[in-house]
Amino acid sequence: MPSFASDNTAPMHPAVLAALSAVNSGHMPSYGADEVTGRLNETLREVFAAPQLRAFPTFNGSATNGVALAAMMKPFEAVIATRDAHIQNDECGLPEFFTGAKILIAPDHLGKLTPEGIERIVAGSKDHAPHAVRPKVISLTQSTEIGTVYSVAELQALRAVADAHDLLIHMDGARLSNAVSSLGVSPSEAVTGVDILSFGGTKAGAALAEAVVIFNPGLQRDFEYWHKRMGQLPSKMRFVSAQLLALLEGDLWLELAGHANAMARRLEAGLAGIDGVSVLYPVEANALFVTLPPKVAQGLEAAAHKFYPWSLAGDNAYRLVCSFITTAAEVDQFLADCGSQ
Amino acid sequence: MPSFASDNTAPMHPAVLAALSAVNSGHMPSYGADEVTGRLNETLREVFAAPQLRAFPTFNGSATNGVALAAMMKPFEAVIATRDAHIQNDECGLPEFFTGAKILIAPDHLGKLTPEGIERIVAGSKDHAPHAVRPKVISLTQSTEIGTVYSVAELQALRAVADAHDLLIHMDGARLSNAVSSLGVSPSEAVTGVDILSFGGTKAGAALAEAVVIFNPGLQRDFEYWHKRMGQLPSKMRFVSAQLLALLEGDLWLELAGHANAMARRLEAGLAGIDGVSVLYPVEANALFVTLPPKVAQGLEAAAHKFYPWSLAGDNAYRLVCSFITTAAEVDQFLADCGSQ
Amino acid sequence: MPSFASDNTAPMHPAVLAALSAVNSGHMPSYGADEVTGRLNETLREVFAAPQLRAFPTFNGSATNGVALAAMMKPFEAVIATRDAHIQNDECGLPEFFTGAKILIAPDHLGKLTPEGIERIVAGSKDHAPHAVRPKVISLTQSTEIGTVYSVAELQALRAVADAHDLLIHMDGARLSNAVSSLGVSPSEAVTGVDILSFGGTKAGAALAEAVVIFNPGLQRDFEYWHKRMGQLPSKMRFVSAQLLALLEGDLWLELAGHANAMARRLEAGLAGIDGVSVLYPVEANALFVTLPPKVAQGLEAAAHKFYPWSLAGDNAYRLVCSFITTAAEVDQFLADCGSQ
Amino acid sequence: MPSFASDNTAPMHPAVLAALSAVNSGHMPSYGADEVTGRLNETLREVFAAPQLRAFPTFNGSATNGVALAAMMKPFEAVIATRDAHIQNDECGLPEFFTGAKILIAPDHLGKLTPEGIERIVAGSKDHAPHAVRPKVISLTQSTEIGTVYSVAELQALRAVADAHDLLIHMDGARLSNAVSSLGVSPSEAVTGVDILSFGGTKAGAALAEAVVIFNPGLQRDFEYWHKRMGQLPSKMRFVSAQLLALLEGDLWLELAGHANAMARRLEAGLAGIDGVSVLYPVEANALFVTLPPKVAQGLEAAAHKFYPWSLAGDNAYRLVCSFITTAAEVDQFLADCGSQ
Repeated sequence: MPSFASDNTAPMHPAVLAALSAVNSGHMPSYGADEVTGRLNETLREVFAAPQLRAFPTFNGSATNGVALAAMMKPFEAVIATRDAHIQNDECGLPEFFTGAKILIAPDHLGKLTPEGIERIVAGSKDHAPHAVRPKVISLTQSTEIGTVYSVAELQALRAVADAHDLLIHMDGARLSNAVSSLGVSPSEAVTGVDILSFGGTKAGAALAEAVVIFNPGLQRDFEYWHKRMGQLPSKMRFVSAQLLALLEGDLWLELAGHANAMARRLEAGLAGIDGVSVLYPVEANALFVTLPPKVAQGLEAAAHKFYPWSLAGDNAYRLVCSFITTAAEVDQFLADCGSQ
Repeated sequence: MPSFASDNTAPMHPAVLAALSAVNSGHMPSYGADEVTGRLNETLREVFAAPQLRAFPTFNGSATNGVALAAMMKPFEAVIATRDAHIQNDECGLPEFFTGAKILIAPDHLGKLTPEGIERIVAGSKDHAPHAVRPKVISLTQSTEIGTVYSVAELQALRAVADAHDLLIHMDGARLSNAVSSLGVSPSEAVTGVDILSFGGTKAGAALAEAVVIFNPGLQRDFEYWHKRMGQLPSKMRFVSAQLLALLEGDLWLELAGHANAMARRLEAGLAGIDGVSVLYPVEANALFVTLPPKVAQGLEAAAHKFYPWSLAGDNAYRLVCSFITTAAEVDQFLADCGSQ
Repeated sequence: MPSFASDNTAPMHPAVLAALSAVNSGHMPSYGADEVTGRLNETLREVFAAPQLRAFPTFNGSATNGVALAAMMKPFEAVIATRDAHIQNDECGLPEFFTGAKILIAPDHLGKLTPEGIERIVAGSKDHAPHAVRPKVISLTQSTEIGTVYSVAELQALRAVADAHDLLIHMDGARLSNAVSSLGVSPSEAVTGVDILSFGGTKAGAALAEAVVIFNPGLQRDFEYWHKRMGQLPSKMRFVSAQLLALLEGDLWLELAGHANAMARRLEAGLAGIDGVSVLYPVEANALFVTLPPKVAQGLEAAAHKFYPWSLAGDNAYRLVCSFITTAAEVDQFLADCGSQ
Repeated sequence: MPSFASDNTAPMHPAVLAALSAVNSGHMPSYGADEVTGRLNETLREVFAAPQLRAFPTFNGSATNGVALAAMMKPFEAVIATRDAHIQNDECGLPEFFTGAKILIAPDHLGKLTPEGIERIVAGSKDHAPHAVRPKVISLTQSTEIGTVYSVAELQALRAVADAHDLLIHMDGARLSNAVSSLGVSPSEAVTGVDILSFGGTKAGAALAEAVVIFNPGLQRDFEYWHKRMGQLPSKMRFVSAQLLALLEGDLWLELAGHANAMARRLEAGLAGIDGVSVLYPVEANALFVTLPPKVAQGLEAAAHKFYPWSLAGDNAYRLVCSFITTAAEVDQFLADCGSQ
């Protein structure tokens, strides 16, 4: 079943499976005291050039965002996000539940938060305390939910506005690998200004592996409690850590993301020539958002192509996602079926 | 490192790893619509002789208990448990957080809830509404946190008291395999009267795999929301389901539990002859609770044996846990080192 | 200090004080078993022509909304409201905290929810379960936060859309008296289709008295627990009930609201002739929203008039609220000071 | 209806009603910026000889405890209390809900926490992080739920153990007036070592008025948000503050408590001579706990005396509470009816 439905319909990369096998012998301490998790921490410190970071392996993307935010906020505070944010639309209220806090939607530019949008939210709240919640965290998604990528300069500008208003920055990095690859910068630059990162493994080629990566030392102290209390502390943690290590080894995560991004650009190039089809946003990562005439959409579905409508972008809008197993042949077949409707 | 610290320091069984490999190809629908999860549901229906059950794979034992309880209760209600219960002592407040509810501690007999203890809690609450929370769920652990096992008759008696007071029954089955093996009854009998089961995979030989198994059809309807909102809905669910299927195949879970239980009995038999050592509870599953003279405990630790103190059982009390990889040689070495102090 | 800041800067009406005195002798059962609360229930049943209603006196408007919503929803559900809603902007996250649920903002017309707006929210959620929260409650404010009033026909249309999608209706009636008076209909008609009403006393002339009024019998059953658990169950309940009874007696609440509404219309009429001042919304209750040139606003503040900016309505927008103690002389003084800037 | 059911079946003292009348004219700023609340703060600073304290008026005893605790704790922490504590038995889970935290029950002596009991709880938790919650607050009730009173020396000893383990101290002072009067010390001494006090007004003679009194300046900073978010911020705050001021004026609160305490001692003295009746705890405040033979209890109920069974103290145990309106004649009638059964 070729599929453009999501990058989570893909399997795990063979290197990840091999890593699970490699750590599967004998006793190891549970709950993170194992040496695999130790190596994961060392590796992430090198990858992000951040000797002070601490990584806490987790199971699940939504919960990783939620537990990260919980550690950054008091229940009467607010996190600022875009209307497209995964934390707003796709997590069934988990972020509000884990934090007790409220999500405030700021105006965005191409799915990205802007300093002006954040300023507007902050200004609207601060004269209305304690009736209005207090903005505390900026949550940005890198790459975004609509397939765009924050430049380093954009991240620097958000950090400046954060500093001006005593805000923290959370990054939802479920697709960070796609952003790093797209930007052509170091991982460290791609997370400029970030206090806590939701480091994504599952969509990048793991089976089920994420991590809360805490750059800001002040936020590390009590995190073990949040980790446990939110049900995201793996007992046999070696099996999560090993997956992430396999992806980081030899920059496999960036190689796989580069491939997925290339497939998205191939789709974009092919769709450009098809009548009635328009690409809605810049294609900077591994996802495309397109408008398809109803006849075309129905024809593709009839041909067993898998993809989802994207109602936030309007009627007849759809999302197409590429992953590390998407092949050029699959893309070309999709384009052929699309053009023939 | 031989270890009696916990059954979660063990690796996964090779059959579980093989199952991960077997499902690792091509796209599969995410979030449970995959055929592996379909097969898991069918298999569990056969194993428990319960054609109406639905299983929802999860990551983590504490969270599995929490999300199961959340689906059974309103926030002003209470769950009745023993003072030793995992939900009371070992989950950092997660059950109260996930449910909003309160845990009421009932008197127990050998780590097991009794009808009389439950009656006492119910009586103390019902004349004091709405100032007292309303008892709604009995949560029992099979096998218990202190290594004992509910008989089928005991489960029937709890079901009767539940029915008399409009209570539901949750079972924490993190070590259900040990109980089934120990009782020598069918899995179905070992969960007599249960509305929702936390089905344990991780301690039974998986890497990270649990499931909420809902026998009571009325509790199934909205569960998909709880599953998602608590961060326990795996996107690539096939990789959780496959682990559980591997354990169930050919009754591997019971074979592994039988071995762990036998190792615990071997430990018990050996300790019987050692001066100053006493076994605190009947050894009915894979864990022993013992009192060790300080000199003995220190000697064992010096000899690199791993095990935890168990302060709930008093001073100088310790827990010894066997798992599927515990060997007779390891047990005998422990006994030798114990006797020689 | 004459003030147009809010209707909660006013004192209580003398009849309310007299009622407190009248019930202040001897023992009475606490927590609602007193005869004053009994009479309040009977009176509200007559006022709303609803023999099945039950009223639960409370302290505070924000909490009244929160506890009402909590009784209507599961934590993974959502309440639909306007962007101006008090529950969205003015309650510091209390509604999300009390319910666990999410507020979804629907497009509005003059501060009022519309069937089309609700349809859009429902449609956007239902294909995305369980990743999106499930809409369950429509929360509307009568009169609205921007001083408009739902007609009976508008309420009927909302009830129809609620029935079509299995939704409940909550009404924030902090200023219900102003709406009833403005509509010139019976109280019963002014709450057409409502399942639970937050009945407002404090802004209507009480010192501190609100009530959760439950029309839908199915929602009454467990309410005593919500009432207690959210800290809104008065022990000496007679003193809350007596305030509400005093307002209802002889339709005092409607008389006071009629006066406040008239003062708002007098303000509106006077402002119509002042250069550079524009009234933003229809004046249907006791509040006006105006744009004032900066020089005018500053002059009024210098003259010690009290009123708040209203940033949701844009730059230079302000809110002016009249209450039962606002006098024609105060209005005229405001207008004179406004015109002379 | 003479009643020994509770001190919350009493009315408000006439001076409290007079105070409501005295502040009932003209506009006053809402939400605490009024001058009545300013005076309340000044008065409490004098009463407690604590120039740095800040008082936040609230509506309700249970919620006052909950919001105070919320400001002291993170959700993964725990509050230590006795098995008799109001926060454990009588608040329907509100404290856990408001805080997210867990209540850990320590062994007590005559309803009072002891340093040894607290040490035991702390020791049991700290080696088990993050699986066990982290103790953070000691919550003690002055006077206690069973009518005993902490001496100044006992409070000093609890402060020492708090300091040794980085714990904060909360005092539930719903009946603080009875304790101050009983101890014969200054109010300041009666709250020795306390970080946040739930200052009780309702049971002391108000209609509905409590306050969170924060002695520890570090806990004052964000309290306005907690105050609002938990639904305990009165809009027309003058009417709560005025009640408390009336009680404090001329030490009226202590005079009323002294009377209630005297009535309790009169009851105790009279019961001493009645066969089969035993007083269970030292009578140090305004409540007695007694064992009554069933025939006596039934006779008293038949004679329309009101009082509650107290199941925590065993079978045939009852609570008798005196308040500021209890008369010697009522006590004597109760004794006569008791003796004649």
